[in-house]
This record gives sequence, C-alpha cells and structure tokens, in this order.
Amino acid sequence: MNNNIILQLDRDLKVPMYIQLYNKLKNLIETGKLEEGEKLPSIRSLAEELGVNNVTVVNAYKQLEQESYVYSKKGSGTYVRKSDSELQFGCFEDENMDLMTNGILSMSENSINFASASPTPELFPVEEFKKVLIEVLNRDKGNAFVYPEINGYGPLRESISLFLKEYYQIDTLPSEIQITSGGQQGIDLLSKTLIQPGDYIFLENPTYSGAVAAFKSRGANIVPISIKEDGIDIEELNKMIKQYHPKFLYIMPCYQSPTTYSYSEQKKIELLNIAYENNLYIIEDDFLSDLSYGEKRLPLKTMDTHGHVVYIKSFSKILMPGLRIGFLTAPKKIFGSIVRAKHTTDITSSGFIQRAFDLYLRSGFWKSHIERTKIEYGEKYQLLLKKIKSLEKHNISFKEPKGGLSIWLKLPENINSVELYNECAKNNVIIVPGEIFFINKNKQYSNYIRLSFGSVSKREIISGIKTIDECISSLKGEKTESTKYIPLI
Amino acid sequence: MNNNIILQLDRDLKVPMYIQLYNKLKNLIETGKLEEGEKLPSIRSLAEELGVNNVTVVNAYKQLEQESYVYSKKGSGTYVRKSDSELQFGCFEDENMDLMTNGILSMSENSINFASASPTPELFPVEEFKKVLIEVLNRDKGNAFVYPEINGYGPLRESISLFLKEYYQIDTLPSEIQITSGGQQGIDLLSKTLIQPGDYIFLENPTYSGAVAAFKSRGANIVPISIKEDGIDIEELNKMIKQYHPKFLYIMPCYQSPTTYSYSEQKKIELLNIAYENNLYIIEDDFLSDLSYGEKRLPLKTMDTHGHVVYIKSFSKILMPGLRIGFLTAPKKIFGSIVRAKHTTDITSSGFIQRAFDLYLRSGFWKSHIERTKIEYGEKYQLLLKKIKSLEKHNISFKEPKGGLSIWLKLPENINSVELYNECAKNNVIIVPGEIFFINKNKQYSNYIRLSFGSVSKREIISGIKTIDECISSLKGEKTESTKYIPLI
Repeated sequence: MNNNIILQLDRDLKVPMYIQLYNKLKNLIETGKLEEGEKLPSIRSLAEELGVNNVTVVNAYKQLEQESYVYSKKGSGTYVRKSDSELQFGCFEDENMDLMTNGILSMSENSINFASASPTPELFPVEEFKKVLIEVLNRDKGNAFVYPEINGYGPLRESISLFLKEYYQIDTLPSEIQITSGGQQGIDLLSKTLIQPGDYIFLENPTYSGAVAAFKSRGANIVPISIKEDGIDIEELNKMIKQYHPKFLYIMPCYQSPTTYSYSEQKKIELLNIAYENNLYIIEDDFLSDLSYGEKRLPLKTMDTHGHVVYIKSFSKILMPGLRIGFLTAPKKIFGSIVRAKHTTDITSSGFIQRAFDLYLRSGFWKSHIERTKIEYGEKYQLLLKKIKSLEKHNISFKEPKGGLSIWLKLPENINSVELYNECAKNNVIIVPGEIFFINKNKQYSNYIRLSFGSVSKREIISGIKTIDECISSLKGEKTESTKYIPLI
Repeated sequence: MNNNIILQLDRDLKVPMYIQLYNKLKNLIETGKLEEGEKLPSIRSLAEELGVNNVTVVNAYKQLEQESYVYSKKGSGTYVRKSDSELQFGCFEDENMDLMTNGILSMSENSINFASASPTPELFPVEEFKKVLIEVLNRDKGNAFVYPEINGYGPLRESISLFLKEYYQIDTLPSEIQITSGGQQGIDLLSKTLIQPGDYIFLENPTYSGAVAAFKSRGANIVPISIKEDGIDIEELNKMIKQYHPKFLYIMPCYQSPTTYSYSEQKKIELLNIAYENNLYIIEDDFLSDLSYGEKRLPLKTMDTHGHVVYIKSFSKILMPGLRIGFLTAPKKIFGSIVRAKHTTDITSSGFIQRAFDLYLRSGFWKSHIERTKIEYGEKYQLLLKKIKSLEKHNISFKEPKGGLSIWLKLPENINSVELYNECAKNNVIIVPGEIFFINKNKQYSNYIRLSFGSVSKREIISGIKTIDECISSLKGEKTESTKYIPLI
C-alpha cells in the first residue's frame, strides 16, 4: 500500500472499528487509490499501525472479500480485485450468478445444459396467460395499472388463500398474505424485517446461495447445519441453537436445493417441536413442492399449528420465471413490519401482473398446467434416472428425489467435481460442481455434482450422460491432487 | 416491566450494546412478554440496572420507535405499541403510507383528493400498451417469460440508452443501465450497495419519506439539509460535509417532492463542483422532469461530466405506476455491486414487462403520451393556479413550479397545517399537511400544505379550493395553541 495513504479510525464513533476500517478501504478501492491487483498490508502489520486488535483487521478484510472488493490467496495475502465493470452478467438464473462470479460457468450455444433448474419456455402456458392478460385489460382498462395495496391486489390474495386451502390444506386469511415479486423477494423482505447486524441465521448446508447472500447483506452471521437424506440434522441443530440463539432457520423441506432431499414426516414433527420450544421462526422456501412424480408432498406449513413457520412460495420454477410473482404468509406479529419493508423495497409488485395471475388461478388454469408439467418432466426424470444407472459402475451414488428438476450425485472420493466440470465443459456438457452450494467450502465437499433436467431434451439427456460417463472414465486414471480451478470468492 | 424479565448484554460481542438491547426488547415485544400498552422502564433506571450509559438505552428506544414497536409520550415515557395486525393497509401510494401510519389519512369514496400525486387511470395509454403486450407474446412466445439478464433485458437497455440521449442529452452505454422495478427499487438497491450501518446520508429537507425509510433501514444516520426555492442550501451543505463526511447526497433536482422547487442552473454547477471536490456521490431521483408546462427541464445528470451523479428514473408518475418499471445508471466502480444487490433482491425485474416497455419506447408511443399528458395536466395546473390566487387574501404564499403534479403552499404563521387538514377532511377535501415530509418534525414546519392535482377533475379543483378557502376562514378566528393530532411515530 502506498505510504502516502494514512488510515485513521475513531474510537469514539458508534460504528464498530472493523466497519470503519472496511469503509475506508472500500473507499480507497472505489476511488482507485488502492489499485487493482495491489496487495493489502498483512493483518498483523496493519493492526499494529492502527493500534487495533488483529481481529478488527481480519473482520474488515473478510467483509471486503464477501463483497468481492478483495480476494485472498492462501499463504500469500489479500489482494484488490479487478474492477466490477469487467465482470460479465449473462442471461442466467439463480445460482448461476454464483457460478459466474466464481469464474466457473462458461456456456456456448450448443452446450448440453444440465445446470439450469428452470423449466423450458416451450412448456410455459403462454396462450392461457395471453387470454387472462387481455381479459384484464378489457375489464379493468387504466385501473389495471394503478398501485395495488402494498401487501397485494385484494382479489389475488383471496385466490391464493383458496389455493393454499385446496392444494396444501393450509388455512390462511387473505390479510396474512404478502404478494412478492418472486421467491427471492420474500427472502429479501424477511431479511429486512428480522435481521439485525450480528444476528445468527441457521441454514441447511449445502443450500441456495441467493439466500446466503441476502442474509449476509444484512450483516447476519451464517451458521450451517448439515442436511441428511430425511432432512436437517436434528442433533446438530439442537446443539447449535443452544450455542447461538438464532433469529431464524431457513429451509427447503421439499426437494431441497441442491440436494433434492425431502423431509420425512417424523423430522417435520421434531422440527416444529424445536421451533415451538425455542420460540424460533422457520422460514420455509417452497419452490417445487407441486412437482412430484410419486406421492404428493405437502409443505411443512401444512403442519404448523403454532404459527412458527413463515412460508415463502415461488412460482418461478413451476410456472414462468419472467413473471416475477410469488407470495409469503407470516405470523401477525411480524406481518406489519413485512408490509413496511415491501413498501420501502419497491412500493408494490406490478398490479397488472397480479390481476392477470388472479384470473389465471380463478380460471383453473393452474391445475391443468401442473398436470402437463408433471407428465413432461416425469418422463425426463425417469429417463435420466435410467441413464444415470449406467454411471453406477463408477461407484456413483444418489437418492431418488421422486420430484423436482434435479438429481444430486455423489462421486467416488477420488473424483473431484470441479475437475469433472472442466472435463465435461470441454466436451460441451455443463454440470454444476456441488461445492459452490456449501457454506463452508472445503475439500470434504469436493465430490458432489448436480444434474438438472429443466432445460434439456430427452436426446440431450441420452448423449449428455454418455459424455459424463466418458469424462469420468478419462479422469479415473489420473491423479487428483490439485485442480486448476481457484475460487475467486 | 415484569420483574421476572432479566435483560443481559454482552460486552464481548461485536454487536453494539444498543443493538443488543434493541434486539432483546424487540423479541420481548414480539413474543408478547412485553404487553401492548405496557410502559418501558425509564432510561435512567434501565441504564443503571444494566450498568450501561444512558445513551445506549436512548438509542435502543429510538430504534424501537423508528420501527414502530414503541411510541413515546412527551413527559410520560415510552410504551409498547399496538400489534401490527391492527394496522390497516389500504390502496395507496408512496407517501400516503406515511400519512396512514401517522393516523392522518382517512378517505371516503366521495372525497376530493388533493393528496395523490399520481396520474389518473383515464390518462394511461392502455390501448397502446395492449398493442405492445400482444406483439411481444406473438413474437417471443415462451421466451417472453424467461429470466432476462440481471441488469435488464438487453434491447430495453439499448432503447433507454437512446432515450436518455434524445430526451435529456445524457450519454450512457446500455451496459451502464440497471433496470429496476420502479424508482423506489433504485433507492433500495443503492442503499444496499452504498450504505453501511452508521454512515451519514444527506437529504433535502423536506423530502420523500420513502427514501428516508430505505436509508434508515440500512442503519444510516440521516442528515437533513434545507432546500430553498432555487435548490439545496449550498452553505449549509458545505458546512455539514466537513462535519459528517456523508456517503452520498439524495436529491430531486426537478420539481422536488414535496416543495416542487427546481434547481437553478447556477446551483447545479455549484453542486457538481462540491461533488467533485469532495468525491461525493449525488443520487438524483427523477420522477417528473418530463412534465414541464413551460421551459423544458433537464436532469442534473445531463451536466455530470465527472461521473458523480447516480441517476434514478421512475416511470410511475408519468406513465403508469402499476407497471413497476424504472432504471438507474451508475458509475462503473459501483455498477457491479448494484447488479449483485439486484440479484439478491429479486433476481431480475419481469422480463415480460421489460420486453413490452422496450417495444413501447421503440414504437415512439412515449413522445405522444408525454405531449397528451402535458396538455391535460397543464390545463389543470393553470386552473389550480388561478383558483389558489383566491387564497392569497389569507396571506398564503407559494412559488409557481411550472411543472409537476403539485403546488406547495405556505400558510400564515397562525394556521396549523394539521388543523387545516382536519377541518378540510370534515368537509370531504383531502390535503397533505407539510410537516410529515420534514425529517426533523417540529413546530417550525407546521404551516405548509401540499395540494396535488394528479387525481382531481377540473370541477373538483374549483369546488375543492372553495372548501379550503372556507376552512381557512373558519380557522383564522380560532386560537391554535394545541392540535388534536398526536403523531404515533
């Protein structure tokens, strides 16, 4: 660091020292006074210079790293990252943002894409939606475009209340429903309502990185709890609750992302008891429960008699992501704060889309759409399952999810998922290395991959699995001591 | 407070003590252990009990009050508020949320509504929008509903880049544009990108309460700077910059809300120089610049040669609020962080609406819509101006805004705006008392009102002003020592 740069912290401010330091360094980077690629002072030397504890510097550097201002090289130090303007933002969904920022995802036009867990546009109910859109315009004219209520267009909240009763046996009043612009906004609103800097938040590990990012952005401390094939590890959860007193637990009980595991009924009961005993909110993120190929799965919320479950519903994965519509239901005690957070976030969700979606639900289009989607993806699921059996000779294992849009594979110990990703990518097949979903990314999680069949055709499933098979074979002979992939974050 | 409740704070935690205390009290309220209406301990007694400084308790109580958990009665103490579930959330816009929470706004069906600064649905270009919506569905089919890029649908960012050049002489690349779900989301994204707890943020005073709420929600300290008829008070601004080193300054240079004042060219130059010298970001919120009834007004961004202005554009006030579409442009250094914040907030804005809005702009519908709107509201503006002259006999003064959808009136010293509001409401005319827009609400700001003509007909303007005239007359004789209105926040 340039010797002319003088850093000073103020002990008398209410702002914690590490945040003061973080702010000053951030400013130096943004204004170009710390240049790209430049090495930051060592933790010990900067702490000495400022007369602060090492931890202050560690925390400031950690915060900068979380926000991608710097990156650390093991055994070497902390460096200023390249300017944001050089990042590429492509047309991708959810976790793929994470893949991109990690420099992993590069996809060409003719790749076979096992990375996307979103349905293909050919399956979208466009004609039905066109019908309700035009009906709304003819019926409501200009009123279709006024501000709806902050918590959502009244009749839509009624439809959703009926929908919850009919499909999931959940009793909720229209006044307890907040319409959101997709499931992610539900996560953002709850972060704003419930998280204060320094709070502990529990998540399944591995989990959805968009939730981790939202919680961290509010200054939360993230605590990972292992997930098993029948749901979260109850013993670990109990232990951690005693230690950390979390603000809430965020989970995906049906076809969890990325593991595809679903909670057993027994585990659901245990979990609700824990919530009750510890007065703990559980945030249930439901984005796929409707897409079952066997027995119907009901949300955890269905069993929530004491009102500890905050239920977030996304329609992006099972209807159309570009609609940006979803909702949440929450206990009365926090509902007002959620509505205020919604207002501060974007006033309301589009009243026009809400009116159209209301008509869509009332017209019964939803039911036929789900049935069509189940048939279409059920066939792809069965085909993928059959083809994956051919990989078992490589000592690959998995649990049949019986729903959803992905399969989570465990590779043998000596196959590294990032190496397999690289090998497959060379052959135009895109898979997702599992380690990016783990909160504490380390070696122990290097041998999982996720295969999603949201965007692949049956022909692509057949030839894609063949390619993966060959790639594993070609890797199996090789040593796997080091990988070329160095995570940027 | 119940004697069984034991509060304990931990000095060793990174979390500031006042936030620890705030969290504990919030939890006690949410779980019902502190009951509605219950009085909290006095500041001094709680500080003594906990062995902390008085300021810690003051700050914790202040935070609880800001978030409506408690309210304070002057000279009496601090009390737990009624549960949120009893709040009513109606079908209102922007600042009216504030009116409601303050218990001010109550509107019946046949009221004359001078409170709404949104255009009426009859003026919305519904037929034109229907045309582009159908065209998008026919052209793009299912692709209309896939996820667009996080920063927005590419062709729309191109259209907006052209739009900025043509209408405002602003040079911006499509890659520097982030599409947002309305202007408020622009404010939210910038809060997430730029604000760390404890940062100082400068705002014009009075200002838009939705911005104050968004900044406070990130833990910012709000510093009000007076606004004059030709823009912000430069002297005060300079003084405060030296004292507080703000993260940014948030302003509305064209037809500021609520004052309707516009910045003079001279003041714009001075302000940009200050930004340059202090390396300060200015956030320009532009929601009305297009609606001029005299000379055309250009945004501050037009003159921003050094890239210090972050420009937020809303289309809610001049097109249709229920669309939820807007955008922002920002310097490269922070653009990547804004895109990441957008992803964490709601992944993307609706791709379908973005495609339709792109066609709307490309089809040249915008130009004719603005011309129509200017004629319609220009006539209402002139009529309102003429009628308000009749109030001058009461010693009422105002500056002609020559644009926008409101007029800001200064009442004589002895007329209190909340009393006038109450009197008018009794006679079915709704005005907005000015004091709710002031950051530091106190007596000195009690004699402004805002009259908006977004939702009133010409006939309503005539009879509404007559009613206001009569209400002022009836108040003028009375003493105004105390008002019946007690703010809840």
